[in-house]
Amino acid sequence: MIKTINKLYQTESILKEHGVFCINLMSSPGSGKTSLLESTIEALKDKIKIGVIEGDLETNNDTMRIKAKGAKSYQITTGQACHLDAFMVHEGIHNLGIEDLDLVFIENVGNLVCPAAYDVGSHMNVVLFSTTEGEDKPVKYPVMFKSADLVVITKTDLLQYLDFDIQKAKNYVKEVNPRADIITLSSKTKENLDKWLKYLEFKLEIFRNSLA
Amino acid sequence: MIKTINKLYQTESILKEHGVFCINLMSSPGSGKTSLLESTIEALKDKIKIGVIEGDLETNNDTMRIKAKGAKSYQITTGQACHLDAFMVHEGIHNLGIEDLDLVFIENVGNLVCPAAYDVGSHMNVVLFSTTEGEDKPVKYPVMFKSADLVVITKTDLLQYLDFDIQKAKNYVKEVNPRADIITLSSKTKENLDKWLKYLEFKLEIFRNSLA
Repeated sequence: MIKTINKLYQTESILKEHGVFCINLMSSPGSGKTSLLESTIEALKDKIKIGVIEGDLETNNDTMRIKAKGAKSYQITTGQACHLDAFMVHEGIHNLGIEDLDLVFIENVGNLVCPAAYDVGSHMNVVLFSTTEGEDKPVKYPVMFKSADLVVITKTDLLQYLDFDIQKAKNYVKEVNPRADIITLSSKTKENLDKWLKYLEFKLEIFRNSLA
Repeated sequence: MIKTINKLYQTESILKEHGVFCINLMSSPGSGKTSLLESTIEALKDKIKIGVIEGDLETNNDTMRIKAKGAKSYQITTGQACHLDAFMVHEGIHNLGIEDLDLVFIENVGNLVCPAAYDVGSHMNVVLFSTTEGEDKPVKYPVMFKSADLVVITKTDLLQYLDFDIQKAKNYVKEVNPRADIITLSSKTKENLDKWLKYLEFKLEIFRNSLA
């Protein structure tokens, strides 16, 4: 019998063995997950070795984008499945090869519902939420936002063209999940990108200290 | 034994009995489903009686927005479920009360994966796709786009601030689903809204002719 929980343990164990920090990145389709990863890889390439497991129903478009930035990436196509699960991610970790990495991102299937229900063995959940989506997403998708350690509000460069109240959005996040950290940024203009990068470096350092 | 297929038949039957056309509206969270419905109700209120069944995990925010425009609306909250199903919609139809309506919209849970797998008894599937989401959504979520009779590309007012190639987006839709109609519009500036309204009036007329 193969148990999901065993796959989780195996993923957690191999990450620990190699001292690799793992982040599960979730959001609606088109909220800017891949764009944020592109900017992150570009900014950190001389400091932190990043790999990305990509989850999509179809295509390897996102893996191609990540590889073009010089990082390792492995594509999982789920067919009709609306989320990545522990089995898929465990296989992804093996196929990606994490021995030489510091940080692995799991870019989950774009979906603000289903991925929240599946533990994939990551150390941290980051939920993206675009300024183009409307402020009340956290209260309409509370399960996802409750699962977030960090909420990143993306595409702030578009704020001037939208009727999006960023304070209202933050209040909704805090209403659903008072313990979530929040960062607002633009991957395009790089506004506040440094806050996200510092956050990653900080988490990676804590993780390493806790292993040592 | 209660069968899903019976619920579908019952929904189809009651729609036919009252001559009500029913559209299942699907998209990512924040692609502008409710905004399009607001504009549609406002524009057609003297011609076509519209009702809306709203599907969300939590909140009745969307129902309040629809009612504020003067249309009937009934909210279904699904809790953790990522889609509406035939049972929910059948109950929604009864609670909404469709005797006095011409057109019922089902605003499905914002999700570009799961709702595509559930027939809810509607006459037509419309899939929305925002210019803020990236052109390759159709090839990354092919099951949803294959299910579409009509694809509406929304938020065209933002095109000037985005790197979104509308021709590329249309090509991707056609690649996945050559038979899908495509309309591009902005609910905010009303650009091309008339095309959508004419499409609705045309479909409603054909539907009525086919019943007569």
